[in-house]
Amino acid sequence: MNLPSKVLEDVVHSFSQLPGIGQKSALRLVLHLLRMQPQQVERFGDALLRLHKELKYCKNCHNIAADEICEICCDEKRDRKLICVVEDIRDVIALENTGQYKGLYHVLGGLISPMDGVGPSQLTIDSLTTKIGNGDIEEMVVALSTTMEGDTTLFYLYKKIKQFDIKVSTLARGVAIGGELEYADEITLGRSILNRVPYENQLVK
Amino acid sequence: MNLPSKVLEDVVHSFSQLPGIGQKSALRLVLHLLRMQPQQVERFGDALLRLHKELKYCKNCHNIAADEICEICCDEKRDRKLICVVEDIRDVIALENTGQYKGLYHVLGGLISPMDGVGPSQLTIDSLTTKIGNGDIEEMVVALSTTMEGDTTLFYLYKKIKQFDIKVSTLARGVAIGGELEYADEITLGRSILNRVPYENQLVK
Repeated sequence: MNLPSKVLEDVVHSFSQLPGIGQKSALRLVLHLLRMQPQQVERFGDALLRLHKELKYCKNCHNIAADEICEICCDEKRDRKLICVVEDIRDVIALENTGQYKGLYHVLGGLISPMDGVGPSQLTIDSLTTKIGNGDIEEMVVALSTTMEGDTTLFYLYKKIKQFDIKVSTLARGVAIGGELEYADEITLGRSILNRVPYENQLVK
Repeated sequence: MNLPSKVLEDVVHSFSQLPGIGQKSALRLVLHLLRMQPQQVERFGDALLRLHKELKYCKNCHNIAADEICEICCDEKRDRKLICVVEDIRDVIALENTGQYKGLYHVLGGLISPMDGVGPSQLTIDSLTTKIGNGDIEEMVVALSTTMEGDTTLFYLYKKIKQFDIKVSTLARGVAIGGELEYADEITLGRSILNRVPYENQLVK
């Protein structure tokens, strides 16, 4: 796209580097910015300048945090023997929203993906094995996407961890609650019949 | 959404003010920024800071320009008696890409929309009537969307302009080229049968 202004080109270019935003959508966003108050756009730019400088990661779980150690890791009520391995902060937010998980987290910061040039050394896997090697953890729940990258990462973690005497589990896969059987894909449906659950387990006792 | 970091919250909030981007998409974009080089994100922030300060508008047509007067308005080969009224720079780019229009433009900078609090005074309508009042223009093509706002703006312009002795036209509406009749909506199809074009006009002479 041929744009008549250098600064316009710069902003459109920056937006179009983001996933799912092409040149046309980028221009639409920038035209919206131009109709906003200049102060609002300045706050936006200023926040971006501060992003990499001011953002802190929890030294324990590598989640984004306000302090050196995040709130979850500080929480004395949490089960310190249970650790859930996730890709990024979005998964932490999603799992926290369920209210069902009371252990700690470990944020990998990505998935192993040779296609995108992401190897194990770019993730926080070393810090995870050190933590598990210290011997305080009894179970590791791997909560990654069931994509090629997720499964590769799960297998890599399993190989690294199996020397230690801890339980490794993954999230249950099956038909979604509220979902209709006829719309479930065959792999999910097949897995859900293999891993069927006794009805008694689901009764409120 | 509860985020653990102030700067993260600021950037997510800024992104989620853009059209079509909610809190979840905003967080996805910010996590992508975190995996980019810090210098790239800084260039993004810097470009946003410069946006409102450095952007220039053509004094003649109000399009975004590199100088005081844009390239199109400077072009001596263009028909200065023909002016095309559009909403923003995207429409100028789209019309220029057709290669079919040789007149000048006038960029309104928006459409009249009482719902969004945009009145005629926020658009460049005064400058348009002054230009037409000077008497050099013979035809004004109004190329606005056929939405409520577009039609309101067209009617307002027509009332303002009709005191001057110039031709006012709009874009032809009809079935798209390559489009199938059965998928065209009734209003478009109805308009295209009313405004049917003699086949002779379409023959290459």
